[in-house]
Amino acid sequence: MASDQPIGIFDSGVGGLTVLKALKRALPKESYIYLGDTARVPYGTKGPSTVIRYCRELAAQLLARHVKMLVVACNTASSCAMEALRHDFTLPMTGVIEPGAAAAVESTKTKKIAVLATLGTVKSGAYRHAIVARDPAIEVDERACPLFVPLVEEGWTDEVATQLIAERYLGDLRGRPTDTVVLGCTHYPLLVPILQRVVGHRVNIVDSAETTAAAVRKLLTLHGIEATGRVAPAVQYLVTDSPGRFREVGERFLGEPLAPIEEIRVGG
Amino acid sequence: MASDQPIGIFDSGVGGLTVLKALKRALPKESYIYLGDTARVPYGTKGPSTVIRYCRELAAQLLARHVKMLVVACNTASSCAMEALRHDFTLPMTGVIEPGAAAAVESTKTKKIAVLATLGTVKSGAYRHAIVARDPAIEVDERACPLFVPLVEEGWTDEVATQLIAERYLGDLRGRPTDTVVLGCTHYPLLVPILQRVVGHRVNIVDSAETTAAAVRKLLTLHGIEATGRVAPAVQYLVTDSPGRFREVGERFLGEPLAPIEEIRVGG
Repeated sequence: MASDQPIGIFDSGVGGLTVLKALKRALPKESYIYLGDTARVPYGTKGPSTVIRYCRELAAQLLARHVKMLVVACNTASSCAMEALRHDFTLPMTGVIEPGAAAAVESTKTKKIAVLATLGTVKSGAYRHAIVARDPAIEVDERACPLFVPLVEEGWTDEVATQLIAERYLGDLRGRPTDTVVLGCTHYPLLVPILQRVVGHRVNIVDSAETTAAAVRKLLTLHGIEATGRVAPAVQYLVTDSPGRFREVGERFLGEPLAPIEEIRVGG
Repeated sequence: MASDQPIGIFDSGVGGLTVLKALKRALPKESYIYLGDTARVPYGTKGPSTVIRYCRELAAQLLARHVKMLVVACNTASSCAMEALRHDFTLPMTGVIEPGAAAAVESTKTKKIAVLATLGTVKSGAYRHAIVARDPAIEVDERACPLFVPLVEEGWTDEVATQLIAERYLGDLRGRPTDTVVLGCTHYPLLVPILQRVVGHRVNIVDSAETTAAAVRKLLTLHGIEATGRVAPAVQYLVTDSPGRFREVGERFLGEPLAPIEEIRVGG
């Protein structure tokens, strides 16, 4: 039955595993199929029409595997492709931006929010739009931090160089009334200790992985498609490049072994 | 006639523009078509079968535009796809690894060479094989430096953070007899000032862009297909993602405006 079908999650690569981790913790009875487009990662520096095309291909792959819901666990993809996906596909779906924006609006008292994201997400203005639509009085300071993704993938989450780079991107926030920082990229949760030091401890850091898990729970209830508990929950991984590096980097993200991983072909 | 057709160059993105720059300086009468696979960049972290598939598609695009020669201006692609391309296509072609390896072998007196490259190039062992085939007595120290590409693309070629990262990747080379360092990635020439400081000034840094230009000159002569000089030389740029970022980052690489740029579709 539909409610025991898996939830489909896709991302440009390994980053969305932070969202899967939050989902598995929040909704342990559910099954998941995670699809990482490792053959074309990253999306953050690519143009919207290319990213939309890739997202359509990934969504179609997951639908062919009968997922009951779609989670777009990539901020860049969520920032430009949700409308196209909602147009093409009718199943329940969520991106990571709306949940993150909602949590940030709830968090801020000074009405000053900073959003850290990839170049593509910043250029789209998606967080700004989602936040201002909820409260037009809020000022949104969007910052592209393109070196954070490769630093996290390198495993340099607690290095002097990383601290210096974070300082350069964000150091000036300490002198400002900003009280909420949104992690607008699924890689960034691994940098929370450094980011908290750089922006100061009075700033609330909103991790959109956590807020997305809460949004998925709501959607499941709304549509009455929660897992029944009669089927043992399972997780399956699909990647578009050979699985070696996905496994290696991904295990740092998920904090547990990834298996099974299947390589599939999308696009060309 | 064939000799006035353009030389086709492809790369995963903007990096190969350092090779184009060297080619334009060495062979100013030639015309060039540069194809950057910006929709799927980077190749350095992807598996060989994926990279080979991408290279076949790019080569076919250039052949359809009647290029007289093929230059694979991407180290990762050169490290795994040359054999497949030579099998599929009969026109004269060169990668960047053989020329760089030959120059390094000529340069070293201590018979200790370090190669700096992406993860993919290092895993392939392509430089090691090319160097040892020329002189089995040479020791090759291959090092993956995955943060260099994003640092260069961010324009941080003279930052303290970059110096720290280079120090961590390469600092120990100062205490060793290594006298030659090969830049095994087309982005790295932009880091030469920092790299030279880190490895010390007695070390010779071999830039494979320069050595590839010399190899192309030889191939043109060998096949008797040098440009006649009767046609005004032109450069055309093709990209697989929208051209905005390619133009922006690429102009730093080439040191001059890029035009015209056309977006084409490859693969899916």
